[in-house]
Amino acid sequence: MKIAIDVMGGDNAPDAVVEGCAMALSKLGQDASLVLFGEERALQSLTARFGLASDRVELVAAGQRIGCDESPTQAIRQKKDSSLVRALNSVAAGEADCIVSAGNTGALLTGATLIIKRIDGVKRPALAPVLPTKTGGHVLLLDSGANTDCKPQYLQQFALMGAAYMEKVVGVKNPRIGLLNNGAEAEKGNELTKAVYPLLKNTPVNFAGNCEARETLSGDFDVVVADGFDGNVLLKSIEGTASVMMSLLKDALFSSVRTKIGAALAKPAFRALKRSLDYTEAGGAPLLGVRGGVIKAHGSSNVKAFCHAILQAERLIRGNVAQIIADSVAALPEED
Amino acid sequence: MKIAIDVMGGDNAPDAVVEGCAMALSKLGQDASLVLFGEERALQSLTARFGLASDRVELVAAGQRIGCDESPTQAIRQKKDSSLVRALNSVAAGEADCIVSAGNTGALLTGATLIIKRIDGVKRPALAPVLPTKTGGHVLLLDSGANTDCKPQYLQQFALMGAAYMEKVVGVKNPRIGLLNNGAEAEKGNELTKAVYPLLKNTPVNFAGNCEARETLSGDFDVVVADGFDGNVLLKSIEGTASVMMSLLKDALFSSVRTKIGAALAKPAFRALKRSLDYTEAGGAPLLGVRGGVIKAHGSSNVKAFCHAILQAERLIRGNVAQIIADSVAALPEED
Repeated sequence: MKIAIDVMGGDNAPDAVVEGCAMALSKLGQDASLVLFGEERALQSLTARFGLASDRVELVAAGQRIGCDESPTQAIRQKKDSSLVRALNSVAAGEADCIVSAGNTGALLTGATLIIKRIDGVKRPALAPVLPTKTGGHVLLLDSGANTDCKPQYLQQFALMGAAYMEKVVGVKNPRIGLLNNGAEAEKGNELTKAVYPLLKNTPVNFAGNCEARETLSGDFDVVVADGFDGNVLLKSIEGTASVMMSLLKDALFSSVRTKIGAALAKPAFRALKRSLDYTEAGGAPLLGVRGGVIKAHGSSNVKAFCHAILQAERLIRGNVAQIIADSVAALPEED
Repeated sequence: MKIAIDVMGGDNAPDAVVEGCAMALSKLGQDASLVLFGEERALQSLTARFGLASDRVELVAAGQRIGCDESPTQAIRQKKDSSLVRALNSVAAGEADCIVSAGNTGALLTGATLIIKRIDGVKRPALAPVLPTKTGGHVLLLDSGANTDCKPQYLQQFALMGAAYMEKVVGVKNPRIGLLNNGAEAEKGNELTKAVYPLLKNTPVNFAGNCEARETLSGDFDVVVADGFDGNVLLKSIEGTASVMMSLLKDALFSSVRTKIGAALAKPAFRALKRSLDYTEAGGAPLLGVRGGVIKAHGSSNVKAFCHAILQAERLIRGNVAQIIADSVAALPEED
């Protein structure tokens, strides 16, 4: 098994990426190896610094780098020698099984679809971040922003793809699928979700009904399917609210001597809270529905987060998720 | 000025509602009076208990009550003698200027549209909760769930309605309008938001561009307009995330003796945090775009929250918001 690494992508690249590779290498199975794509000098000096000389590590020089603000389609078309495009090409050619990148999300999604290509029958690949739940588990949200204006069948496929991921990569048996909706009752929804509901009822997944946005992190669902616009609103408002609350809490705790002392004593609790909200342990977000493995690590990934994204890539490949998605999509009845 | 009160609606009705009326009466202007609609015995005993005998309080017996789980359309059609329908009728007849209800949201929205009716030219009335921001201010979110599958022009009107409310009721000069979107850049969006963006550019409001979900509470926007499905996802995920974080924090603080002591000392900070997140001070959510005032108080409103919803109704009427909306909508160019 070979995992292609985009060394130049992400806020902390290339240093944290290469160090993350070094951390992952000791945890990966012995049959797993890494191919690092990046600027030659950076590769040389960083692999030396982090002791990454191994017969399980291959270095490939790439002369270009795609920035996080570049237009995705243009960047993919024009920067053929970028670390991202080279890494995508290696997956497309079957030389690597999965790519891990913390870089430009749009470029990774566009590039994956253009270069690695969709699985036969898959209408739209979906980006699927893994979120921590209140009960200590995880919930997969897809699509979180790769596709707007989805058709009902796309969400039906998202359900199959999400179920495959949670079952094979996270180890959840018979994952409960929720449909993001504006009410819990079956008849609620907009045109899209009203059409998706009966479709999911007749899909071979464990459909657990509508999921209101406030129930996303409840632990009642293992997968939540949504149009990418709505999934994006959901994901970003969870992130935004958590960040606002942390900042308000900090301000309040620093407002008096008494509360400062209290805060110092309660510090382990705040650390525990941060840990329960920390998604770096869960790795990045897989792009499901393409022919090879694609893991989008968070842009701000530190060493540990990037390491976890690599370990997630290993589980994605060992779980044979792309093949399971291909089979389950092929088994769906023909579209009307 | 007369405010119609649905005494029987809400989790804490009728007691908290009547007590809220008593609290509000001393704060309202002398020209403001209340008409309470509810079951006769409850009205008699509660107004006596809370000392609500005044020439500014009128009691109207209503023989029926609409429960929070009843089908809105059916309830409005069949329960003509319910406190809600009677109160709506009094606004429609011009006997009262505004209704305040903490009851069945769907029934209030349906009833307001069917009985009070839309302002001429308004395509869809919008439910507009007021949320606290990180910077201590407020942001109005509309629509938060009254309308799914919105057309671009609906959101254009939401912008005008939201601007009128924030200016006249909250006192924000030249309110900054944000468009809920999946990216900050002008070209981002789904079919709907891509069509709304240029429309808002050409609407006489202070359009501040796209608002990503994570920026909703940032304080950078005074009004956020959205399709009701997306607004509902946004609102409920903010509520859900805040509640999950509070519960995780509580669990963490109770996990050891040390953190318990810390928590006791830091208690004023947690109270301050709760206060900054508390939306009861801001009152309820106005339904904007109908001919009279409609305030939806939170279903779980306590005495103080209901009191604030009544004071909000007073500001809504004094601000002449419905008339301003009527004028600004009439001034829009004809639809193509």
